[in-house]
Amino acid sequence: MKSNRRKFITTTAALAASTIAASAMPSSDYQKDEFPVVHHVFFWLKNPGSIEDRDKLVAGVKTLAKIETIKKIKVGVVASTEKRDVVDNSWAVSELMFFSDLAGQATYQTHPVHLEFIKNCSHLWEKVIVYDAVDA
Amino acid sequence: MKSNRRKFITTTAALAASTIAASAMPSSDYQKDEFPVVHHVFFWLKNPGSIEDRDKLVAGVKTLAKIETIKKIKVGVVASTEKRDVVDNSWAVSELMFFSDLAGQATYQTHPVHLEFIKNCSHLWEKVIVYDAVDA
Repeated sequence: MKSNRRKFITTTAALAASTIAASAMPSSDYQKDEFPVVHHVFFWLKNPGSIEDRDKLVAGVKTLAKIETIKKIKVGVVASTEKRDVVDNSWAVSELMFFSDLAGQATYQTHPVHLEFIKNCSHLWEKVIVYDAVDA
Repeated sequence: MKSNRRKFITTTAALAASTIAASAMPSSDYQKDEFPVVHHVFFWLKNPGSIEDRDKLVAGVKTLAKIETIKKIKVGVVASTEKRDVVDNSWAVSELMFFSDLAGQATYQTHPVHLEFIKNCSHLWEKVIVYDAVDA
């Protein structure tokens, strides 16, 4: 038991030390993470001014979180950053997903939950642009 | 000491239980995370076929990780997903960043490390499109 107790104390101390090290770091070098495949979709609405349609689409995209191969998902709307020529703010809803590999992304494409989303929500959008990236 | 030991044991058991719960979950509901501001930039190269220029730009974007207000950064190249009409794969390098708030994104825009990156790398790209999103 004494040895076990020492182990707990050591583990806890090590965890605390690593937490302090991470938060004290003023800046960091680039590091890859465990979900290298990024799928970012931008939707333009048929009724661009409709908050109701926008919110319906947001709710629809959020149902995709149930798909097992999506490791992380973020649903977005246009942020009120500075207007600049290079910034495209003409879209309405974005869907940002992370996968462990290309197979996970392919599984998502034909997943029943995704097909149900398309069936229920595709009447809301006029245009879609997709960007598929992999960590460099 | 006995009370401390009990605390260590309880904490460790709680950590273990939460880890098991998370990994056993077959699917999940949508959850927001702590970095709601997403800044996604796509670069088109002046020399689209140049792997050397692409790699220079990738290395340049990675230096941005040192900016304190960038909570997470992913640098990408085009993924070899299925070719579809909606997928834009004409770009070369992507820069995906997460911020805690809009102020953090504004700080990044004028940060010396960012200005240095533009000075060193802007000759490499011909076109840039930026998407700024906030969690819905």
